[in-house]
Amino acid sequence: MSSQPVAGFRFSATAANIRKDGRIDLALAVADEDATAVGVFTRNIVRAAPVEIAAERLRSGRARAVLVNSGCANACTGEPGRQAALTTTAAVARELGIAPQLVIPASTGVIGQVLPAERVVEAGPALIGGLTADGYDRFSQAICTTDRWPKLARRELPSGGTLLGIAKGAGMIHPDLGPPHATMLAFLFTDAAVERARFSAALMDACERTFNACTVDGDTSTNDCVIAFSSHRAPSPTDEALAAALIGVCGDLARSMVADGEGTNHVAEIRVRGLRSASDARIVSRTVATSLLVKTALFGKDANWGRLLAAAGRAGVPFDPSVATIAIGGVPIVENGLALGKEAELRAAEVLAQPSYTIEIGLGSGAGEFSYLTSDLGHSYVDVNAGYRS
Amino acid sequence: MSSQPVAGFRFSATAANIRKDGRIDLALAVADEDATAVGVFTRNIVRAAPVEIAAERLRSGRARAVLVNSGCANACTGEPGRQAALTTTAAVARELGIAPQLVIPASTGVIGQVLPAERVVEAGPALIGGLTADGYDRFSQAICTTDRWPKLARRELPSGGTLLGIAKGAGMIHPDLGPPHATMLAFLFTDAAVERARFSAALMDACERTFNACTVDGDTSTNDCVIAFSSHRAPSPTDEALAAALIGVCGDLARSMVADGEGTNHVAEIRVRGLRSASDARIVSRTVATSLLVKTALFGKDANWGRLLAAAGRAGVPFDPSVATIAIGGVPIVENGLALGKEAELRAAEVLAQPSYTIEIGLGSGAGEFSYLTSDLGHSYVDVNAGYRS
Repeated sequence: MSSQPVAGFRFSATAANIRKDGRIDLALAVADEDATAVGVFTRNIVRAAPVEIAAERLRSGRARAVLVNSGCANACTGEPGRQAALTTTAAVARELGIAPQLVIPASTGVIGQVLPAERVVEAGPALIGGLTADGYDRFSQAICTTDRWPKLARRELPSGGTLLGIAKGAGMIHPDLGPPHATMLAFLFTDAAVERARFSAALMDACERTFNACTVDGDTSTNDCVIAFSSHRAPSPTDEALAAALIGVCGDLARSMVADGEGTNHVAEIRVRGLRSASDARIVSRTVATSLLVKTALFGKDANWGRLLAAAGRAGVPFDPSVATIAIGGVPIVENGLALGKEAELRAAEVLAQPSYTIEIGLGSGAGEFSYLTSDLGHSYVDVNAGYRS
Repeated sequence: MSSQPVAGFRFSATAANIRKDGRIDLALAVADEDATAVGVFTRNIVRAAPVEIAAERLRSGRARAVLVNSGCANACTGEPGRQAALTTTAAVARELGIAPQLVIPASTGVIGQVLPAERVVEAGPALIGGLTADGYDRFSQAICTTDRWPKLARRELPSGGTLLGIAKGAGMIHPDLGPPHATMLAFLFTDAAVERARFSAALMDACERTFNACTVDGDTSTNDCVIAFSSHRAPSPTDEALAAALIGVCGDLARSMVADGEGTNHVAEIRVRGLRSASDARIVSRTVATSLLVKTALFGKDANWGRLLAAAGRAGVPFDPSVATIAIGGVPIVENGLALGKEAELRAAEVLAQPSYTIEIGLGSGAGEFSYLTSDLGHSYVDVNAGYRS
């Protein structure tokens, strides 16, 4: 990936001792001037304090900075949590010489602990002193929690300029992002000039096809958010080019999150076709993608098409099972609702040993289709989540 | 449990070599005369051949026998599967000297394999020769698959007579039973006289509060069915007594299935209160009960209330998080949406070490409440399901 900076933005990260392990855990991105800023937030009705404040502040369509910590979600923390988010963003705003309303907070980590505001405030000067145009790598590392790797994606716009995306997320991944409300976090930075209304609509559309179409464990977080900034330092892209860049970057980040899903070894794209509508296909692909029996079969590299069909059948969407087809990585294993035999399944099982593959499920002759990204689920997922807080 | 027979019914089981391990795998229950018979079946639209045939035959409201095999679900097997179910029930009917339409088939096991009809037919004479009034214990053993123990429950009716229930189920447990369509299997036998319409309505109502309110892995089977028989050898119970007996027996069987859930160590009753309606409370309790992060926390004996609230919040039902309360086994850990502290959580964690407990989630002052049974999810679940077919 190219490592050019995005004109108009600087990045920094430091260790503020929010995490117990001493890793960098506080990140800051600052625009040189007020940027156009839009966001989508979790539709979970239990929303963290930073999510509430970010949503309020982004109503203006403008922002200057985003302050992100890992190690503490600052969710279910009531008024003390809200005060901590206000205090920390105010301190950073003061150091930057800007209004507090221009600093957007975001948090990720354990639910139910109040953000230790004094540690963030103390780390402020070091954080701001470290701002550089190529600091996004450290930014991407500081926001990780159970992630095994940081997540960055980039697209160049044909009209000039760049779209850079930074995300974190490995567990509690089943984003349900919507306006006006988003623990995956994703931050997008572009120097291309995009006015607010167009940016907001294009971002929501891209989220619907990427973050909102991926799952690790089916659990939607209290802290999910995607926030996008434009510095207007490069020409304005066409709608098509903007959409392609947003879908490209968000799609790369979503796939990286699922690949890095807690305990994950494989990424499976569940592509459902032939239903009456894309929304029907979305429901079926999501039901298959979140099925525990499907996910454990993928962990076992077992071409268990019975579980795939059984999951499709319980989605509540009508189809004729006798015309169903299933192919794994292009290897047909079911036609007309019936198994094609052991040899086909053995060839499909070879595909299931690969790190990523597509499972195509045909359920009729309708035009409705949708793809959902999911992961296998095995022992490591249990290890990570049975002892996460201890 | 009392071991008296149920007047008018005999039971048998044998090894028909459907399973590879040589265990008994074929069970038969026969009424001395035509019995009133009603059933509820899976709402999964991918339904096994025996489910289709059972639903057709029970339209008459009468049956004489139920023939059940483990080791093969006979699901997704098309016309050959249907023929196998027809052939085997016809052979048993012939031996019994009754019409084939009076024999109800049921199957459980791997999806996608056709029932080996010739082995069932060969085992017929031994099966029928073994019928005895106290054969229900062997019947209950023969229908097990990944079950660790057989499941029986019984209630005596105040007006006289008995209701005996026999069930199997440990995985792919998230029943969604409805008229006219249910791999949990449950068979209920009563000598109390209950006419068809009343039996059917009371059975559906009991299922809604028991089997349809329990989950192991969120996956609804292609083969679930509950079939109830009355031999009319004892007096007719009141509606209240019938409902109490059905809910009692089905509730015991549902709890036993969850306790025996694949890899399960704990049974948790998720009781949600204070919402506008029972159906809202049902949606929230089901969302919490099926949350992977909740289930892995229960495996870890971690009083992780943040995951409980986050799951409730994504259910799509409105509530005010700032009034939320949570108690585990009577130990309050959250009030007014905020944690009560480490000491409370440590006491709650002691409750979580017990084999069964209740988690109460209060979400307001409404009258709507509902209880859902769920299990913890740990390494054994992964072991059972990553290698089930191999």
